[in-house]
Amino acid sequence: MGSTAMDLSSVKVVVIGGGLVGAMEAIFMAKRGFQVDLYESREDIRTLEHVSGRSINLALSIRGREALRLVGLEDQIVGGGIPMHARLIHGVSGRKSAQPYGKEGQFISSVDRRLLNETLLTEAEKYSNIRLHFYHKMVQADFDNGVIFFTDKDGSKVKACPDLTIGCDGAYSTTRRQMMRCGRIDFSQEYIPHGYMELCIPPKDGKFAAEINYLHIWPRDEFMMIALPNQDCSFTCTLFMPFVNFDEIEAAGGEAPVDFFRKYFPDAIPLIGEKAIRTTFEEGRALPMVSVKCSPYNYKDKVVILGDAAHAMVPFYGQGMNCGFEDCIVFDQFLDKFNNDFAKALPAYSEHRNPDAKAICDLAMYNYVEMRSLVNSRWFLFRKRVDKFLNWLLPSRYIPLYSMVTFSRIRYHTVIQRWKKQDVIVNKGLFYLLCLPVVIAGALTLKRFKPDVFSWLKFSGKT
Amino acid sequence: MGSTAMDLSSVKVVVIGGGLVGAMEAIFMAKRGFQVDLYESREDIRTLEHVSGRSINLALSIRGREALRLVGLEDQIVGGGIPMHARLIHGVSGRKSAQPYGKEGQFISSVDRRLLNETLLTEAEKYSNIRLHFYHKMVQADFDNGVIFFTDKDGSKVKACPDLTIGCDGAYSTTRRQMMRCGRIDFSQEYIPHGYMELCIPPKDGKFAAEINYLHIWPRDEFMMIALPNQDCSFTCTLFMPFVNFDEIEAAGGEAPVDFFRKYFPDAIPLIGEKAIRTTFEEGRALPMVSVKCSPYNYKDKVVILGDAAHAMVPFYGQGMNCGFEDCIVFDQFLDKFNNDFAKALPAYSEHRNPDAKAICDLAMYNYVEMRSLVNSRWFLFRKRVDKFLNWLLPSRYIPLYSMVTFSRIRYHTVIQRWKKQDVIVNKGLFYLLCLPVVIAGALTLKRFKPDVFSWLKFSGKT
Repeated sequence: MGSTAMDLSSVKVVVIGGGLVGAMEAIFMAKRGFQVDLYESREDIRTLEHVSGRSINLALSIRGREALRLVGLEDQIVGGGIPMHARLIHGVSGRKSAQPYGKEGQFISSVDRRLLNETLLTEAEKYSNIRLHFYHKMVQADFDNGVIFFTDKDGSKVKACPDLTIGCDGAYSTTRRQMMRCGRIDFSQEYIPHGYMELCIPPKDGKFAAEINYLHIWPRDEFMMIALPNQDCSFTCTLFMPFVNFDEIEAAGGEAPVDFFRKYFPDAIPLIGEKAIRTTFEEGRALPMVSVKCSPYNYKDKVVILGDAAHAMVPFYGQGMNCGFEDCIVFDQFLDKFNNDFAKALPAYSEHRNPDAKAICDLAMYNYVEMRSLVNSRWFLFRKRVDKFLNWLLPSRYIPLYSMVTFSRIRYHTVIQRWKKQDVIVNKGLFYLLCLPVVIAGALTLKRFKPDVFSWLKFSGKT
Repeated sequence: MGSTAMDLSSVKVVVIGGGLVGAMEAIFMAKRGFQVDLYESREDIRTLEHVSGRSINLALSIRGREALRLVGLEDQIVGGGIPMHARLIHGVSGRKSAQPYGKEGQFISSVDRRLLNETLLTEAEKYSNIRLHFYHKMVQADFDNGVIFFTDKDGSKVKACPDLTIGCDGAYSTTRRQMMRCGRIDFSQEYIPHGYMELCIPPKDGKFAAEINYLHIWPRDEFMMIALPNQDCSFTCTLFMPFVNFDEIEAAGGEAPVDFFRKYFPDAIPLIGEKAIRTTFEEGRALPMVSVKCSPYNYKDKVVILGDAAHAMVPFYGQGMNCGFEDCIVFDQFLDKFNNDFAKALPAYSEHRNPDAKAICDLAMYNYVEMRSLVNSRWFLFRKRVDKFLNWLLPSRYIPLYSMVTFSRIRYHTVIQRWKKQDVIVNKGLFYLLCLPVVIAGALTLKRFKPDVFSWLKFSGKT
């Protein structure tokens, strides 16, 4: 495939999915000069009155920001978001304590999912070589011959004949399912026993009802609640809890939801309101969370999947969107490297990105435990301080795990390697440091009561 | 749900898939008294001229035999099969050595897949409460409301409203896919880098061209070939090899396949024939092997999956069909236990059977290595002898791994536990046994040159 702008404009790229990653990827491909058609099965999100399903707000960090910067939207999105500098931990007693995320000035941004999606679609529409097709649902794909069929709003069949298909259609990706029919694709999906349910802390007198620049966490070991600030001065709370507990509370009905809050989140009741808690439990159904891995991400030079379609993760590291956006950057780099030769770029991208996506899926699962319980542990808090101190001492050599994931673009699988190495060194160091007083005390005691031991040691050393 | 025969005949059970496990399960359910409808997407195998795809012969062992016994077909099938008492290992030099599978009189049977399937369908047809529907492909399922749609040969839509659906539709199960849309089902599929290709050793002068009562193995570390005897005096050979090697040989073309055989399987060339080797490689495409795990196996009291649909495994332990048939027995026992109450029997069956299916999937993957290489190792052969001796000494307490899997109905996950325990004990025992001569020699040497060491030891022991 040629590399001149002239050639590329005749190369047809189909992007499946008009969510965050799909819209972003369409822009990346349009910037390269390809002819891009984006197909989204649902209505245009910009014309919808109410968006159901996915979480309302997202934590944007450096990897996502970098992709936004490359498409010229960083300032707009970060400027519109709300910076969160620290976790604010709520104890059962109502006691609060802050745990900064990184160094002075480092923060993650709470951004509105819908607004971000709309901004990306509107940006995409500015490119003359992007066409957006809403209400187009993929029903059949023959990737070997480059033919895809969609049904449109009226149920009519629509045909597309792309040179390359990019599936950005989420955790339950149709592109992936069609791809799995063609080739030998390893795949796994794993549900966690927890579900999530969203509640709202409305503004109070037109202002935020709780501390604004924080990600609020109520960690309770087996379950937890978090809250992220929105631009309209409300907070979106998300309660994570095993489905069995949700079922129990729902089955009990009546006052059970409020009683549950009284026991575990008493300080959240005046913020959310008893009535709102009751109605949310009555109406709401807890939603599942799934972790998806697959390999490879491509089928020949015909299809590649990005974002959740390739690696859905549990939401506990706030990296789902950030990783998906970084996919767009990395794929773009591979197209650069191989001069837009899909036959080389696709498998190379897949091989390179796979260990990274696997790593962040695993880290997200790890944080699923850390957020619920470790943030309550004294040892964990002590280690956080040690990490901070070492990072201050050796800023480029020692970076805490959370900072590597959130405030750097170090490859995720390298992050895990460095983290494990750092952990071994620090734990050993702390062990010796803690042993030191014991050894010194022992030596002093010996010196006081048996001073000849030292001369004996000296003596035997000489023989 | 009631338990009298009267009630059960009004309970409608749909079995999806008319392969080995589907036909077997239909009989089991008919014997319980349910009204059974079996839907198979393809044509009736009994009317087909040529069956493509799956392997031609299977190794039937005790778990499969037990299910056949329960439906009254054991004698017919085992009688028609060919007993294999041992592995016959073919070295590159042409040297052969036998490794018995079990004790005197124990054997596995090489049975014809097609004949077995036909026998089971014909048997099923004898039951007045079984109806067979061929050319019926499941296209849609609403398990919550118990409605399934099929398309028949003419493309017409056919509706079924079962009380219970049993999916026995293989590794790429449509039932499972439909089930995964309803509930939170963990799932994984993993392809191995090896593919397989079938070749044939035709009869010679109307007789078997090689030793009959063996499973022939040509282990060559990275790849291997096996051969099982057929009733028509031919053997079916299966070559297992990484796809990359298949691709290399195919790409080279010409004499490459025969050259490959000359190098690695010289004694098989006169048996198969040079021309047949060339044409098989020209026509044949190596087929993939996949390992599938999922959990749970049921969705509410509405659907359950058995056999490959629930746990496809690589073929190296010859347990795919045997495990699938055992599924039918175990599910039947749970229906007994819970008096045909699907709401209790289905989840209980799933929870009970899951660790066993997972265990045999893992063991099959382990044997994938053992068959290719370990059978060549001296230590492995020595350990086989030790196992045999210990089994002779403690017949009920010490059973070799292969025998537990193949000649017993010990639960697969218990098999792994016992195997690991046995392994630790035997390896420790052998270590001490092998150390003993060294210790004795050391002691004797000491005694000769420094006899006072013993008195010194005696002395210090007393202080």
